[in-house]
Amino acid sequence: MLLEIREIYKKHAELLNKELELNGWIRKRRDQKNFGFLEVNDGTFFNGIQVVFDDSLSNFDEISRLSISSSVHVKGVLVQSEGKGQTFEIKAKEITIYNKADLDYPLQNKRHTLEYLRTIAHLRPRTNTFMAVFRVRSLMSYAIHKFFNERGFVYVHTPIITGSDTEGAGEMFQLTTLDLKDIPKNDKGEVEYKDDFFGKQANLTVSGQLNVETFCMAFKNTYTFGPTFRAEKSNTPKHVSEFWMMEPEIAFADLDVNMDIAEDMMKYIIRYVLENAPEEMQFFNQFIDKTLLDRLNGLVNSEFGRVTYTEAIEILKKADKKFEYPVEWGIDLQTEHERYLAEEHFKKPVFVTDYPKDIKAFYMKLNEDGKTVRAMDLLAPGIGEIIGGSQREDNFEKLEQRIKDMNLNEKDYWWYMELRKYGSVPHSGYGLGFERAIMYVTGMLNIRDVIPFPRGPKSLEF
Amino acid sequence: MLLEIREIYKKHAELLNKELELNGWIRKRRDQKNFGFLEVNDGTFFNGIQVVFDDSLSNFDEISRLSISSSVHVKGVLVQSEGKGQTFEIKAKEITIYNKADLDYPLQNKRHTLEYLRTIAHLRPRTNTFMAVFRVRSLMSYAIHKFFNERGFVYVHTPIITGSDTEGAGEMFQLTTLDLKDIPKNDKGEVEYKDDFFGKQANLTVSGQLNVETFCMAFKNTYTFGPTFRAEKSNTPKHVSEFWMMEPEIAFADLDVNMDIAEDMMKYIIRYVLENAPEEMQFFNQFIDKTLLDRLNGLVNSEFGRVTYTEAIEILKKADKKFEYPVEWGIDLQTEHERYLAEEHFKKPVFVTDYPKDIKAFYMKLNEDGKTVRAMDLLAPGIGEIIGGSQREDNFEKLEQRIKDMNLNEKDYWWYMELRKYGSVPHSGYGLGFERAIMYVTGMLNIRDVIPFPRGPKSLEF
Repeated sequence: MLLEIREIYKKHAELLNKELELNGWIRKRRDQKNFGFLEVNDGTFFNGIQVVFDDSLSNFDEISRLSISSSVHVKGVLVQSEGKGQTFEIKAKEITIYNKADLDYPLQNKRHTLEYLRTIAHLRPRTNTFMAVFRVRSLMSYAIHKFFNERGFVYVHTPIITGSDTEGAGEMFQLTTLDLKDIPKNDKGEVEYKDDFFGKQANLTVSGQLNVETFCMAFKNTYTFGPTFRAEKSNTPKHVSEFWMMEPEIAFADLDVNMDIAEDMMKYIIRYVLENAPEEMQFFNQFIDKTLLDRLNGLVNSEFGRVTYTEAIEILKKADKKFEYPVEWGIDLQTEHERYLAEEHFKKPVFVTDYPKDIKAFYMKLNEDGKTVRAMDLLAPGIGEIIGGSQREDNFEKLEQRIKDMNLNEKDYWWYMELRKYGSVPHSGYGLGFERAIMYVTGMLNIRDVIPFPRGPKSLEF
Repeated sequence: MLLEIREIYKKHAELLNKELELNGWIRKRRDQKNFGFLEVNDGTFFNGIQVVFDDSLSNFDEISRLSISSSVHVKGVLVQSEGKGQTFEIKAKEITIYNKADLDYPLQNKRHTLEYLRTIAHLRPRTNTFMAVFRVRSLMSYAIHKFFNERGFVYVHTPIITGSDTEGAGEMFQLTTLDLKDIPKNDKGEVEYKDDFFGKQANLTVSGQLNVETFCMAFKNTYTFGPTFRAEKSNTPKHVSEFWMMEPEIAFADLDVNMDIAEDMMKYIIRYVLENAPEEMQFFNQFIDKTLLDRLNGLVNSEFGRVTYTEAIEILKKADKKFEYPVEWGIDLQTEHERYLAEEHFKKPVFVTDYPKDIKAFYMKLNEDGKTVRAMDLLAPGIGEIIGGSQREDNFEKLEQRIKDMNLNEKDYWWYMELRKYGSVPHSGYGLGFERAIMYVTGMLNIRDVIPFPRGPKSLEF
């Protein structure tokens, strides 16, 4: 009976003293004169399984010298273990080798720095840390889909290639099929885009929001979840050029509904991971961030705070704390302010709402005061801003005015404007930077360590 | 009590004669002298709900003239309907208007061609056809995640921006942050990529397979599902420049296991849609393809055929049929051949395996005959090839030889080759073109009609 190690862990009581087979890679090897131990992992479970072998095996000598990462097929009996650290192990009857790993395998049993492991991104998922990170990433992604599916949301694959720039802000990658050695130009020296693939300039999307809004006006409950791009030359632990973003958009929903959904979603995702990856979460709590489980359990069991930007500014002004960036109404909150609010004042996640319009995007709904917009940011202890969203401007004339005020090209937004002509309704949405959420849930501090193959300035390997 | 229409349909028996509230858009309006009917849809369910109003409403005149697509809030009582076509309706006590749609709203109650609807992709999800298509798309996507999650697969977000070309074949989009008007060049007139964002040439991915293989060698069970790109100037109903692809990759799995999983997955997805979108599937069967439900039920209940390429060629040679492309060993099967095999010979989906190596990709495992590879294509009645996959070459030397034979640049594949050095194992995978699968499940005939915002040559709107 061929079993995955995940299944063996799940059913070990009933499998005891039975013969079974498994496949896997050797993570560790210890050997004595007449016997030895292999730690075998097949990737289906965080923990591997101990295989005991002795010189009754015909290939005992070969197995005793087997290199780390070699791949094997094991036939044996599941027995109670007398050793420390495991309750059961496999007593091998037969070990067949698929492939002996070359001895220059870089992941021998010593600690490696995360920086070094980034240079072998094709091998790092075989380490405990990255096996935990990428299983949690997968579970978080599933939890997001499950959360929205249960609520009847329609998942929309918004386009990656775009002719417009969502916020008139982000630096974008341009794409082309023109021969860069020989770009066609007109008399004025401008690029002749009519010869390019799309017949006009094309970029990689920075957000799916405007596109998903069109579907929200049909299905009411929608979200997009996919890769987004920034051509920023920032080499910080928080920036990569390609990352995933999850953006719900809900019709007939004001900012309160928006916050309710964001709060429910965050708790749902975290609960899902705590329940479905207990071994991985224990590992992070032990080796990456010893406050992690306390923080996550705190979040799941708290009621998030809600405060306006104007109130938040008052709180910060009264704070018994010297900030690097001075606090006054109108400033964009810095990480130090966000963390003070979440960690020291509220001591839990808090939504800050109704920001000054001048520091927010054109599509956010103007409040009656004429100077703030129905924006919300969710600030979380330990990280600062983790979600940003707003109620959208649903009035045609006001939206048109904002587009003009911000010097955006009205023509680019004709279809977005039309949503305000044909049955406009109050609607809201938000964006969750997926990698930032994974960092929050795992305690990992560098975004390059939570995405399979990170892309950044001068960095495009694999 | 504010309810979504989906909830009203689900719980209408217990809601009967109770007062409730709902939001929605007006799809149709009929009015008499003293009363009228609105069909209101909020997008949460395929069917809308009939709202009856009369001149007891203070704004009766305004409601009687309300334009199609206007958005409203309705308060009323759920009552049994005496009219045809519905069993319950809402007797309105109060109708509040969010927004009166402009009278030039293009989706008035008449038939529109699919071609025309493509020009208003921001509004077409409000039609029955596209509401059905895009809900099914969302459900199929969820079914894929659910299927793999239940089997412990890890979802890997493989990168979109790539420095290499997976199969040395597809035409790719190049991306750059260089100023196209002023491309830096060296003495030989070559582009100076050191000044470009990534310091080298960068393209959009054509497949996540090679990247996901690295994770498969850690987690055993993996898949990627994301956008892929082709810069082909084909303007056919089957081609777009941006589409989604789902690619599982499984370690310790030969071609038989690969086919088992592909077969289980196809049946799982289709069953999921039949169960979770019965109204939509009924709609497709009635208006798009009258053989659809028969075909899908047939697929779900059949055992897929399995035949080698060499046997398939024999079958085609013996066929009492004149093919446009002559049949002989070594040819790539054309759609006419594929459809003959699935529709006329096997009368069910069939896997064709072990194709000539010269018509398949470099990474497929060479058979012992030295001339065929462990490839598989799944051919389905009504569409032809729907899945393509293979067991991968796991032998370092043989893979190296294939890369050389096919004049690929070995340096681009150093990390892919290393998977064969450090614990290589038999492994297999396949690719499902997601849009093609949606076309199969919905009966839609043009790929532009199953993707929210299709991109193609000279086509980049929205």
